[in-house]
Amino acid sequence: MDVGIMGVVVIYSGGLDSTVLLHHALQMYGNVEALTFNYGSKHNIKEINMAMWNTQKLQISHRIVRLDFIKENFKSDLLQGQGEIPEGHYAAENMKKTVVPLRNGIMLMIASGYAESIGAEKVLIASHAGDHFIYPDCRPEFNRALNLAIEYGTNNKVSIAAPFNKMMKWDIVKRGEELGVDWSKTWSCYKGEGIHCGKCGTCNERIEAFQKAGVDDPLMK
Amino acid sequence: MDVGIMGVVVIYSGGLDSTVLLHHALQMYGNVEALTFNYGSKHNIKEINMAMWNTQKLQISHRIVRLDFIKENFKSDLLQGQGEIPEGHYAAENMKKTVVPLRNGIMLMIASGYAESIGAEKVLIASHAGDHFIYPDCRPEFNRALNLAIEYGTNNKVSIAAPFNKMMKWDIVKRGEELGVDWSKTWSCYKGEGIHCGKCGTCNERIEAFQKAGVDDPLMK
Repeated sequence: MDVGIMGVVVIYSGGLDSTVLLHHALQMYGNVEALTFNYGSKHNIKEINMAMWNTQKLQISHRIVRLDFIKENFKSDLLQGQGEIPEGHYAAENMKKTVVPLRNGIMLMIASGYAESIGAEKVLIASHAGDHFIYPDCRPEFNRALNLAIEYGTNNKVSIAAPFNKMMKWDIVKRGEELGVDWSKTWSCYKGEGIHCGKCGTCNERIEAFQKAGVDDPLMK
Repeated sequence: MDVGIMGVVVIYSGGLDSTVLLHHALQMYGNVEALTFNYGSKHNIKEINMAMWNTQKLQISHRIVRLDFIKENFKSDLLQGQGEIPEGHYAAENMKKTVVPLRNGIMLMIASGYAESIGAEKVLIASHAGDHFIYPDCRPEFNRALNLAIEYGTNNKVSIAAPFNKMMKWDIVKRGEELGVDWSKTWSCYKGEGIHCGKCGTCNERIEAFQKAGVDDPLMK
């Protein structure tokens, strides 16, 4: 039971999944702080604008952490100045080019160090079941092992959790509907241009999720 | 057996322990790259100067990664602009104020993502037995759990190791003597001023280590 919990840090990109997670965490825990990582992806700025809008609406303390070393040193087509974002279905082989090695691991470790530093006890991330086959550091076995490491590595026994771990993206859309998420203020498209391209892996995944959830998406007209 | 290993990333501060580790790794693996993290500690610049000297001497590729978010967001007397470095013995309670929460965990996770990105298979860190009682993220159980997480979280199954894990600092000095380390090019003092203060926890630890190893320290005359 999470009774008397002191504070929860939510890793919050401004994308669909983590925007629902932020609303969910606020309902579950009350005492929530949002941490957004700018690691130089093509869609980071679009996401961060959404993140700022939602944290202001929810009156949640929000901190943006720059991770310039990722763009400078890591190889991934998701990053600015590197290869083109592939089009097609999210599950396709070419989406692997958009993996940023251990991106979630890095965000979770930093967020956990920050949580220890401010006396918060829990870190939440929005990894879901649809992420598992592309991103090794979204999988339950990764999160379990890392959770143990972080408990060992902190004096306050900070824990990490991925509450949407067993949900598909359409389940997250349904949960977001219950929580009153404004879908027009969530960014998904990996290309990060003026509007959602409707062709990249994350756009395809978003379209499918809204269809299966039976919800209207204001950004995909 | 580490036969046919492609590449090893050494987390290299420029301190005594990691300078010995760098020499050790070069002897063991040959194909070594050094990664130094500038996280805003009071002694970072002193350490980095030493790190640059040693990597040039050994002709090892060297990359410096800035982690500004630690200084900006984490609380620790080790960091610039925060409390005074305590004097006294390394094991004392007041040294706990110098803990940077999950510092090693953050460095290990980033180094492992970088290793995956460049096709290296192993990440080494210089944690040793004397660190364990102060720094939770130097302990064997932390490293074991994190190693499992990183294996799960990378497609190349990157592994992490702390070869000096069971050694005390004087054992590391003995190993450094065998490897021909230039002790005048290793920085320990947490205060990061002109010369080693001889009073802070790391200075006391260094003095004891050279005494027990029976080695002369050119920086502590």
